[in-house]
Amino acid sequence: MKRRWMVCSGCSRRIPFRYDGGLCGCGGAWLVQYDLEEVKHHLSREKLRERPATLWRYHEFLPLKMTDSIVSLGEGWTPLIRLERWEKQLGLGEVWVKREEQNPTGSFKARGFSVALSLQQERGTSRVAVNSNGNAAAALAAYAARAGMEGFVFIPRDCPALMVEEAMQYGARTYLVDGLIHDAGRIIQEGAREMGWVSIGTAREPGRVEGKKTMGLELAEQLGWQLPDVVIYPTGGGSGLIGIWKAFCELKELGWVQGELPRLVSVQERGCTPIVDALEAGAEEITPKEDATCANPTGIRVPQPPAGQLILSILRETGGTAVAVTADEIDAASQTLGGEGISVAPEGAAVWAGLLQLRDRGDLHPGERVVLFNTAHALKYLPWQSPTPPPLVTSYDDYRQILNNQVATQPSTESRPESSMDR
Amino acid sequence: MKRRWMVCSGCSRRIPFRYDGGLCGCGGAWLVQYDLEEVKHHLSREKLRERPATLWRYHEFLPLKMTDSIVSLGEGWTPLIRLERWEKQLGLGEVWVKREEQNPTGSFKARGFSVALSLQQERGTSRVAVNSNGNAAAALAAYAARAGMEGFVFIPRDCPALMVEEAMQYGARTYLVDGLIHDAGRIIQEGAREMGWVSIGTAREPGRVEGKKTMGLELAEQLGWQLPDVVIYPTGGGSGLIGIWKAFCELKELGWVQGELPRLVSVQERGCTPIVDALEAGAEEITPKEDATCANPTGIRVPQPPAGQLILSILRETGGTAVAVTADEIDAASQTLGGEGISVAPEGAAVWAGLLQLRDRGDLHPGERVVLFNTAHALKYLPWQSPTPPPLVTSYDDYRQILNNQVATQPSTESRPESSMDR
Repeated sequence: MKRRWMVCSGCSRRIPFRYDGGLCGCGGAWLVQYDLEEVKHHLSREKLRERPATLWRYHEFLPLKMTDSIVSLGEGWTPLIRLERWEKQLGLGEVWVKREEQNPTGSFKARGFSVALSLQQERGTSRVAVNSNGNAAAALAAYAARAGMEGFVFIPRDCPALMVEEAMQYGARTYLVDGLIHDAGRIIQEGAREMGWVSIGTAREPGRVEGKKTMGLELAEQLGWQLPDVVIYPTGGGSGLIGIWKAFCELKELGWVQGELPRLVSVQERGCTPIVDALEAGAEEITPKEDATCANPTGIRVPQPPAGQLILSILRETGGTAVAVTADEIDAASQTLGGEGISVAPEGAAVWAGLLQLRDRGDLHPGERVVLFNTAHALKYLPWQSPTPPPLVTSYDDYRQILNNQVATQPSTESRPESSMDR
Repeated sequence: MKRRWMVCSGCSRRIPFRYDGGLCGCGGAWLVQYDLEEVKHHLSREKLRERPATLWRYHEFLPLKMTDSIVSLGEGWTPLIRLERWEKQLGLGEVWVKREEQNPTGSFKARGFSVALSLQQERGTSRVAVNSNGNAAAALAAYAARAGMEGFVFIPRDCPALMVEEAMQYGARTYLVDGLIHDAGRIIQEGAREMGWVSIGTAREPGRVEGKKTMGLELAEQLGWQLPDVVIYPTGGGSGLIGIWKAFCELKELGWVQGELPRLVSVQERGCTPIVDALEAGAEEITPKEDATCANPTGIRVPQPPAGQLILSILRETGGTAVAVTADEIDAASQTLGGEGISVAPEGAAVWAGLLQLRDRGDLHPGERVVLFNTAHALKYLPWQSPTPPPLVTSYDDYRQILNNQVATQPSTESRPESSMDR
């Protein structure tokens, strides 16, 4: 049985482990803490090599009490491939791409939801919900299906239709929202009590950050326990960035890696750059925006990232930075990486565009090892029209209205929030 | 340096290794043979456990002379997940799904093209072409890009548009064909000499079967070197089935697995079932069809599978069979597996439908371990309209006509088949 706590990333206060998220009174984010001395005692880097090729090889670093509540579809241990032609062309030491699109549901979101829904399984949850720009909705839907839970997803109406379709294929109750991702989140908060929804939204629970942490653990192991010099990551809600940083910190504490942490770099798209703006302004906090004017409705369009303080301190303390790229740069980067045989999401393309900017402004040094993350398959972002689009809602009241109409015409389990799922 | 030969699957004649495919005079297929005694001498099952999680962990079983011509995007070592709820519901021992959709390009085709284009790299090829119902085209395009070769793909016009788009994203010269997959193949044969195309079509070279063979090697290793009782596989051209069978044979010869080979079962869709028909007729050969009337333009719509004798003998000798499923059964199976959180291609759904048929007719026994293959992501098959669809051709003459028009209006390297690629 594992020992686990929550520690505030701001004031270091430690409290008992909890399944809920939220921020500490000081504005810091609650992060899971483990007894790493205990891990060191019975696990070694050599032992890891014989473990299965999923993120659950790191189960000692994940918050489940026991491994019997694991909800897995074969996530993690994604390929890390090297772009040697481009190293020469750009005059860099090593350029690697971590191919997160090869996860279940075609995106890195699988990691967070595998761990988050395993935690909910341990807790006995039967209804889970998420607000999402698309990939998280598909991942929640798949893992809820695998776990035998009911999944509810709320997606801004302009997000990629193929991901909406995917969520429906996995059987999630799927709704489009006339607004942005925080508007979708508000609907879940308002309905949580009445509908029995447990929110798996960013920073609402500890599992997603811990799941994404495995990207950093894998990176270290795949590079032979040598950390790279720079990691460039597309940043929306920021839990991927936080997870990777946390992995490196835990590995250092264990003594499994040495030296400085890599410089972590966030990439955002012009039109929605709250992190870039706060960093440039020298602010301690991110100022939430109400709107976003970027061209692409992707996972990095998040005007109000919840764990702002922590994101900014990670970028500063590692000597990293944040970069804003344009829609045109994203398009060009998609073509570049497509021409290498890699299917990149706009978020992954943004990372390549960020690499070019960093290099042009002299922020990368000769011989350095740089790792880029591609977060999802390109195809999932193509414009498409579902023959049977899901209902469009603006508020929780809208949702209730649609539900009432459904109940009036046909029996539905949705009117009985207390029911266990009947699969 | 590896020793390798070609052996005829029909008459066992052995000849020196060759990069070209084709059939032996007796009608058997040429398969690569290795010096397995040599493999046994310096490789063990224990050593394998520490190898990287790609299909190249099995490089001793693959036809490259040396490993320095490997063209890799991180293919293979895909998850194998168990469906415990369904085992109970169907009264079966174990039901596993091998998730080939988690390969690069979202399908199992990545395996074959990684190995085939590595062989072409070794040989110094600069132009490769394939006729394909979609997934093979995308895979050829990606691996050609990675290898720095020029890729040409010819796809029946009614095949899924998202795969066509994917091939274009990887920079392949992409053409739609007004006909079926063998019509597309004819164009490549006609233009091979003039255009310098090396065909990577089914049975045209030895790499694809060998690459797909790694599905069988992985399956054995992932199951702890215990072969399952039954393997159900969607069968079009048949090289996946042949590859899996060949893996089991090689592992038996090495002494790494014991006992009977699994019963191999081919699944086809009604309207294009040359293998099912031949098996039911007790024929030694498959009678090529000119047409196909099945509802889904998928990878199993192959009216003229080239290695017919071998496919039939594999199904018979392992005690397996072939099953025809309907479009409605495929649709229902997509929903079933979607409801488990698994994104299945119609081919993978057909396999589930095949499982249900086998069970209903008593062909599966209590306690048996059954492995199903899902070959690709569901999303790749959704109806979609490319804003810039590729040209439509009926014949090689059409192709030349389009090419001439392009040359007249803009400079193109396509008019110089002898040129090396200029990336």
